[in-house]
Parts: sequence; C-alpha cells; structure tokens
Amino acid sequence: MIRSEEERPVTHIAVKDLGRPIANQTIIVRARLHTSRGKGKQAFFVLRSQAYTVQCVVAVGEKVSKQMIKFICNITKESIVDVEGKVMNTDQKVESCSVQDVEIHVSKVFVVSSALPRLPLQIEDAMRREDDLEGLNIKVNQDTRLDNRVLDLRTPANQAIFRLEAGVCQLFRETLRAKGFIEIMCPKLISAASEGGANVFGLKYFEKEAFLAQSPQLYKQMAIASDFGKVFTIGPVFRAENSNTHRHLTEFVGLDLELAFTHHYHEAVKVIGNMFTEIFRGLRDRYASEVAIVGHQFPAEPFKFLDPPLMLEYCEGVAMLREAGVEMDETEDLSTPNEKLLGRLVRAKYDTDFYILDKYPLAVRPFYTMPDPHDPTWSNSYDMFMRGEEILSGAQRIHDADFLCERAKVHAIQSYIDAFKYGCPPHAGGGIGLERVTMLYLGLDNIRKTSMFPRDPKRIMP
Amino acid sequence: MIRSEEERPVTHIAVKDLGRPIANQTIIVRARLHTSRGKGKQAFFVLRSQAYTVQCVVAVGEKVSKQMIKFICNITKESIVDVEGKVMNTDQKVESCSVQDVEIHVSKVFVVSSALPRLPLQIEDAMRREDDLEGLNIKVNQDTRLDNRVLDLRTPANQAIFRLEAGVCQLFRETLRAKGFIEIMCPKLISAASEGGANVFGLKYFEKEAFLAQSPQLYKQMAIASDFGKVFTIGPVFRAENSNTHRHLTEFVGLDLELAFTHHYHEAVKVIGNMFTEIFRGLRDRYASEVAIVGHQFPAEPFKFLDPPLMLEYCEGVAMLREAGVEMDETEDLSTPNEKLLGRLVRAKYDTDFYILDKYPLAVRPFYTMPDPHDPTWSNSYDMFMRGEEILSGAQRIHDADFLCERAKVHAIQSYIDAFKYGCPPHAGGGIGLERVTMLYLGLDNIRKTSMFPRDPKRIMP
Repeated sequence: MIRSEEERPVTHIAVKDLGRPIANQTIIVRARLHTSRGKGKQAFFVLRSQAYTVQCVVAVGEKVSKQMIKFICNITKESIVDVEGKVMNTDQKVESCSVQDVEIHVSKVFVVSSALPRLPLQIEDAMRREDDLEGLNIKVNQDTRLDNRVLDLRTPANQAIFRLEAGVCQLFRETLRAKGFIEIMCPKLISAASEGGANVFGLKYFEKEAFLAQSPQLYKQMAIASDFGKVFTIGPVFRAENSNTHRHLTEFVGLDLELAFTHHYHEAVKVIGNMFTEIFRGLRDRYASEVAIVGHQFPAEPFKFLDPPLMLEYCEGVAMLREAGVEMDETEDLSTPNEKLLGRLVRAKYDTDFYILDKYPLAVRPFYTMPDPHDPTWSNSYDMFMRGEEILSGAQRIHDADFLCERAKVHAIQSYIDAFKYGCPPHAGGGIGLERVTMLYLGLDNIRKTSMFPRDPKRIMP
Repeated sequence: MIRSEEERPVTHIAVKDLGRPIANQTIIVRARLHTSRGKGKQAFFVLRSQAYTVQCVVAVGEKVSKQMIKFICNITKESIVDVEGKVMNTDQKVESCSVQDVEIHVSKVFVVSSALPRLPLQIEDAMRREDDLEGLNIKVNQDTRLDNRVLDLRTPANQAIFRLEAGVCQLFRETLRAKGFIEIMCPKLISAASEGGANVFGLKYFEKEAFLAQSPQLYKQMAIASDFGKVFTIGPVFRAENSNTHRHLTEFVGLDLELAFTHHYHEAVKVIGNMFTEIFRGLRDRYASEVAIVGHQFPAEPFKFLDPPLMLEYCEGVAMLREAGVEMDETEDLSTPNEKLLGRLVRAKYDTDFYILDKYPLAVRPFYTMPDPHDPTWSNSYDMFMRGEEILSGAQRIHDADFLCERAKVHAIQSYIDAFKYGCPPHAGGGIGLERVTMLYLGLDNIRKTSMFPRDPKRIMP
C-alpha cells in the first residue's frame, strides 16, 4: 500500500453521491482510476465507481508538487485510489462522465490498491456501445470478457445488470411473501434423477451414487403435501445438457413456486401472472436508472406488459401461427422459431411482450401434469413468455398417488409417488429461469450476459 | 375424489382464522382430518391445518343422516376434507385444540384427497413433547421421521420451525439490503476445490472434471474486486465430510456476505454483529408465535442477546477458559468442548447467548486471512457463536495478489489469486450456516430438525 501524503482522511463520499449540494466542500472519494492524462503542470483524470464516473483536475500549486503530478500520471489504470479535493461546479457539463455538473479539484491522492499495468481488457472498450465500434478493431469478445470476468463486471452496464437481477429476486419474494408464500430450501444432492434420467450430473456420494437436482419439483410438491400451502424457493438448477445456444446454461438460478388451490388451477395461474406484473412494474419503477444504464450500451425496445396479463389458449396460439402461414398440427409442440414468431404476432396484435399460453397438449408435457378433466387431449398446464421466449413452465400436478403411478409408467420414481399417499391438496406451480427473465426484460442477446459466472458445456471458469 | 354431498362450497376459511368474530356464520374449512371418534348418533373430529387445530361436532338431524356419520368415521386420518358448518362459541375452552373458543357444527363433509389407512407414523405421536413420553413406547425416532418427512413435517413444531427459518433468511436479506448490500448468485459447479482439496465432491463435467463449491468464498470476493461494494448470497454449500454429529450436514444453506471497508476491518465486524442483533430482534418480535409452538414440543431457554453485541478478543476467551481450569496455549485452536464451555462462561458473566470472538491466532485460520498488521501471531479474523456453538466464521481477506501468493504456498489456486491483480479494495466478510442459526436460536438438539430434507453421510433420501 503506497500513500503519497499523510494518512488522515476527510469525509468519504461515493462517486454517485457527488452533486451540487456539496459543492465547495473538501471531501475524499475512494474509486478506481478510470483514465488519466498529464498536461505539463496539470493532470486530468476520471474516477469510476460502480456505474458512475467523475472528472478530477490536479494542478501544481500550494498543495501540489510537480512530483505529485508525475506520481498521479504513473498510477496504473484500475488501481483503487483515495482522492482528496474540493468539489467544484463546472462551467459546462462534463459530457464524458456520469457526474456532469461538478468536478474534483484534487489536493491529495493515495493509492489503496494497485492494478497490474497490463490489463487483459480495457474497461473503456468493454463498456462501449456495440454500434460505436464500426470499423474499429476494439470489440471485446465474449470469451475474453468471461475469462476476465472480474474486470468485465466493472462496466456500468454489468453493474446495472446484476443490480437489476437482484431486483428480480427481491420482487419475486416480496410479491409472494405478501400473498402468504413461505420460502423453503430444497436439497440439490438427490438420490434419483428428478425429471427422468437424461441430462443429469451424477457423482459419488460416499459409498452411494447421487445426482444434482434438475429442478426442486419433488421437494416443493412435498412441501405442499406437508401443508405448507404456498411455497417458493430460489436456488441453482443443474442441467447436463450439451446445448450451446444463447439461452442455455448448465447451471442457472431457478425461481420456483408451488401452491395449493381450492377450486381450479386458474387460481394459481392468476397468482403467477399477477406476480409477473408486479415484477415488471417494480423493475420499471424502481430500476429505471439501471435499465437506462444498460440501454446505453445495449439499446433495446422498452419491455411492454399488460395488467392483468394476456392469457391465450394453446389452440388460439396455434391458430395465429397457422393464419401466419405456419403448417402445424393443433397438438404438436411449439418449436423455438414458432415460439419466437408467436411472440411477434402477439405483440403486434395485443401490444405486450409478456403473455401466458394455457392448456398445452397433454402429450408434450411431463408425466406428472394433470390432464384436462373434460378432454385428455389437453392438460392443465401453461408456459409464460417474454419477448417470444419461454421463461416459465408450469402446470397443475397430479396429486393422487394411484393416478400418478398410472401416468408415470416407466418413469416411476417411488419416492415421488409415495409423497402423495397420505393426502395432498390439489396444487399447481411453475419454475422460472432467473437469467432468462433478466436477459429478456432488458432485451439482451445472450444469457451469459445475465449470469455473473456463467456455466455452459465449454465453460466452468472462473 | 369422493364427495359426500353436492359440490357448491360456501366461503373458505383457514383454521388459524377461526375466531369469535365469525361465530354463528356458516363457513367451509379445508384441512386434514387429525383425529375422529364416533359416539352413537354423533361424531367428534379434529381438523388440523399447519400449526392449528379445531374441534368439529356432527350429529344426526335435519341436514345429517346416520350414513353420513358412518361416512365421516370411515375417513382415514390425514385425509384432506372440506368441512361445511356453523362456527359456534363453546361453553368451555377446548383444551386439546389450538382454536379453543369455537367449534364447528358440521353440516357437510367432502373428501378432497384420501390418505392410505396405514400411516408409517402417527402425527399425534410425532408432535408429542418428549418429556410426556416416559414409560410410553410411542416415541417416533429420527430416522422414521426423516424417512417419512412428508408426514413428519406436518407437526405444528415443524410447521413453525420452517416458517421461522424462512424468517432468518428474510431478516438477513432485509437488514443487509437496508445497508446497501446487493444479492449475488454464485456458481456451485467449480473447476477447483475452493478451500483446498479435502472434503469436496467431484463429478464429471462433460469431458472435464468439476467440483461442488464448499463455499462461495472466491465468488463473493470477485464481486468485491468487481466493485459491487457490499454483497450477500444465499445458497447450498457442499461438504463431503464423513462427520456424523448433531451439527454437521453434507449439504447446508450458507448465508454469506462480503463487504469493502474504508479504514479498519472492525467496520465489517460491526455490520455483521448488528445484523445478528436485527435478526434476533426480528425473530423475537415477529416470530413469537412460532417460537412458542416449537417450545411447546421442544422446551428451551429463550435466546438472550445484547445490543450492541458482546465482542471479546480470542486471548480474553482463552483467559476465561484457563481461569475455569482448562489447560491450553494462548494460540491453540478452540476444541468443540472448549467452545461450548466458553459459551457457558460468557453467558454466566455477560448474560448473552450470542457473542463475537475476535483476533484468532493466524496459524489456525485459512491462508487468505489477513494477519494482524501489528503482530502476525494474530489475525484480523473472528468467529461468532450462539449458545456456545460457532455459527459464523469470517475475516478480513488478503486483497493483494503478491501477498496472497506468498501466503498460499502449496494451496495456490491461480484463478483465486488472479482476481486480486487488477486492484481490489480491503474487504472482510463471513459465512453463516442457516440451519445452525435456526437450531441454536430455538435451542434444538439436532441440525436435522432444521433442515427440511437433511443430507448427511448416511442419508440422501427422500
């Protein structure tokens, strides 16, 4: 730790809190040296902290020696410094910084933590808008970013993305807790593959074999069979699937919920749909600054939603696709391109980026899905979509052990079926992919942008 | 699904909401048949929902036939029923139920979901206070409970334990969010063992090898090196440790936090200590009913804490132990029995069940712990205790890559060290075991009581 002058600090203040009310005060700011340039007897540098930047000026004078200017110009970019100085109003706005009305007239600089002089990526490049790059060979590619995630995460857009993602979790919990849901913790080490044997990670568990949970399905249903009534759980979900796409991860965060209902599974669909409305409203109203910061680097159309949300039946969705020229059967599953197309058709017709598709064909859903009691071609199941991509899959579950056993056939997992032998209320629920919700709300193009340390078949580092 | 009469329901109401204000109204309650007994032309039965019970009376009359009495007496215990009837004030308190001032005079009963007639455990036995069992051979042992967790979780004590545990998580987040902490998500699949090679679960990850994270240590520190400032994360932690004790699990929930500080690591200790005070205060004030319900089955002394919390130095703790006759060196690690003893000594002297032990000997702490700058015999590290058992371990971390490299020696994990090469603020943090906090707050004797689906070397089911 190097300190250029004596150690006693003045009041510390964060970059984002620098504003007119404190002009003419002497303060100390801890932040990173973003950029600097010397110019004879003075130097200009920019401090960056989280998503915010401020300009600093230092000039030779009573308090500042020529050596100090040299010292400052030699501080490596990304080093953390304590800068003491006076907050001064500027004559004209500092367009290049987020703090535009004031700058700091510097009297002291301490180095708190030095960065190596050679950075594997430049933050200025990593935070540049992609359409500013035309003709310039300074695009930071995704693997470079992810290999050096500790630097990449320092960009204003990344600072905002993960604050907003935390907001999604918070809004999810807040909305459900207000409705009487209880948070539960579900084990990730399980003795049998939860959704059939494919795409599951196996491991040695002392003298036995174990698997990593592909969903908390059985456990949230057991909580319902144990009278917890309405439950949610947030945790990692593991899929050993060799899918290398913009929207698949091998480990993602699942926001799962399950609830007992009284008369009809639409009670649950309504709760889930309204929860999304609350999340979207919360993001719009409480995270406007984060959305703007992300949009600055990654421009996107604002996310549109209706209150109450739009709900279509599966067969209505298929009819819209057919009308648009798609040839498909009414009980055929939706392909990913057709989901995307339907998203565009729905947006054109109903002006919403979020909608619910209800009553899927039974044949395309998991064995534990409740068939429609009036017509077993269909099922009491639903998916929910954002910008044409699925972000929730859910259904009423079979809560009768004998019926489940009959439906399960080869799938039969005894502990799953046993859970329903001692009385279980009718219930429904769903599982949400957190990173997908964040990606699609912000209109980003890759799920690796919304996973802090993404895992895919080719990446398990850092 | 069997229904004894026609289907239209009246207003549904929860057992816990049955009280005087609705006396004389006709309502419908969905709950489990807890117990029943017929007596000629009438039957008495008790409904149970979550932690609450209510008495029901049904007698042959205008609305009720003899067949219906027979039908009710044949409903298996634990079946879920919709009971329609009038809420009536009782002449004397119903001592055996939680709802004591009213009972339901039943007109209709529908079976929503039947339980098998033979239950692997009786809820009445499972909910009995242990000291009521003397001489009776009806104690439900722990393996029977855990093998049939879906039944065991229905006891009032378990309903309350997991509501309170959700409260611990909520209070942890609430307190930290109010202080500007951001929630992050840390990967559980990692490429190198986070805390050295021992006690780690390994697995095949496509063509590579992977491990399950033993803590989110590296990731929360990377978030600090990435300027998130103050972070917390809640998630599973995996330990492949063959420890079969009352306080070890192979998978538990970690409440982790990490924060950059300005001048001294005691800023972080203060934040963490005060957070515990907020959690204890919140549990005491908002979860009094849950604490009482658990205490009814598992009596314990109320949990005592001070505000601000008590902080002792490690050497003070050792001095107290020596004074009590323990022979140990000042820089020797605390054994589990000595931790317990020190907890009792502290309680006797300071009247608190929570305290902080600061400045551990450097030699007994992980390599990434910051030594005391004035005397490297000691370190800037701390543990926190509840009722004499450790529930948090934490420290200031080394934030300088060269120094970390020097301290790491054989441990050296390159990606861990790399994270600190590009500037990192001084920071400290800690990791908390959720199940331990719940167990010790409630004064329970086994961590399996506070894990909904516990995992230990011998158990990975259900």
